[in-house]
Amino acid sequence: MKAPPEIRETLTALMAQYAMALDDNRLEDWVELFDERCDYKVVTRENVEQNMPNVLMWCDNKNMLRDRVESYRHVNLYNLHHDRHVLGPLHFTENDGARWKFELSYSLFQTELEGASRLFSVGKYRVEAIADRDAARLKTVTVVADTGLIPSLLATPI
Amino acid sequence: MKAPPEIRETLTALMAQYAMALDDNRLEDWVELFDERCDYKVVTRENVEQNMPNVLMWCDNKNMLRDRVESYRHVNLYNLHHDRHVLGPLHFTENDGARWKFELSYSLFQTELEGASRLFSVGKYRVEAIADRDAARLKTVTVVADTGLIPSLLATPI
Amino acid sequence: MKAPPEIRETLTALMAQYAMALDDNRLEDWVELFDERCDYKVVTRENVEQNMPNVLMWCDNKNMLRDRVESYRHVNLYNLHHDRHVLGPLHFTENDGARWKFELSYSLFQTELEGASRLFSVGKYRVEAIADRDAARLKTVTVVADTGLIPSLLATPI
Repeated sequence: MKAPPEIRETLTALMAQYAMALDDNRLEDWVELFDERCDYKVVTRENVEQNMPNVLMWCDNKNMLRDRVESYRHVNLYNLHHDRHVLGPLHFTENDGARWKFELSYSLFQTELEGASRLFSVGKYRVEAIADRDAARLKTVTVVADTGLIPSLLATPI
Repeated sequence: MKAPPEIRETLTALMAQYAMALDDNRLEDWVELFDERCDYKVVTRENVEQNMPNVLMWCDNKNMLRDRVESYRHVNLYNLHHDRHVLGPLHFTENDGARWKFELSYSLFQTELEGASRLFSVGKYRVEAIADRDAARLKTVTVVADTGLIPSLLATPI
Repeated sequence: MKAPPEIRETLTALMAQYAMALDDNRLEDWVELFDERCDYKVVTRENVEQNMPNVLMWCDNKNMLRDRVESYRHVNLYNLHHDRHVLGPLHFTENDGARWKFELSYSLFQTELEGASRLFSVGKYRVEAIADRDAARLKTVTVVADTGLIPSLLATPI
């Protein structure tokens, strides 16, 4: 399905902000892109295809996201690597009023301090977002990672 | 050259569908993005620069694409890896009425079952598409792979 | 912040041209995307975070870019590898009249002749551009590479 150009602009900008906030280590800004009632999950593709409930990270409201980021700030005094997300174009799948569902592919690279960059994970985001004239916010983000080897104690969100 | 925002939206959505259909292993949906009279080719950059006629995959009408997908379904009972395309923005090069020519870069990653993801191929698509108010469909897709080491018996399209 | 869809279209097209010109080895076309008064720099993320003045490449006007490309043409009779940029969506940060500031992530792959492709660098562009109704041109491009191991004698621009 298609979306009007201004909806694609708004939601592309939202996902660009999402990625830039994570890559700049502005995790608090990343949390602010979500609605108070939201759901953030990281699962693997195998999980989804086998209908297994196993998840690598799960926060089912915004306070859990806030807690997660705060505890990360206390544990990690030094940032040991940098993330870099490169996102593909949005593929819209459903629309109901201001509610839009779409998917997009991501590639995520990590760089050790002063070191080389390497591929960390690829997969797709399944997103449900509210986009009205003034603003857009995330209701549901499910990261479906193709990569099955992601450590279950993920330090930072994908 | 520039394209009006609604044309960029329509054709970006078409290429997002293209990539998502391949990555979800919905090859039949991928075929449906093409016009009945179409041309799909995979070549390497060296080929193009040396004007050699060698191609890794070539279907010069939609029935050949259908046959290719059908035979793939009979041979591959199990999917041995997952594909993930991350596409760059469209670069428009020509326009004649509803006909648009554009190029875009791709990165293609593969993931073994429950394994790590790795880079499989990078390159660009050279596309000719028809975009009218209601729909868009692919006339010509030439995959120009930078990677010269792609096996000539490509299992799935790029 | 958001930009009107036609501005996103114009500046996305500009960055798509930027990447395609480099990847097609049309460096002269790449130079033409810049304003006469421009600034092009390649730095590493570590540099930026530590406020060190160290840069890997720096041209502070268009003639320097022209010289750089011309001397590259004299030194490199044969192209030893191919570049491939895959760019993410634009994240707008500031606007003042026709002047737009935005950032976008890149992944850059290199392919040896007839060989395999590998990841060369990831990072982001910090861009200042002029976009009026007819055209867009680059005022400032700062490449902030996450990868710290880039040789300081960079052959081609990123």
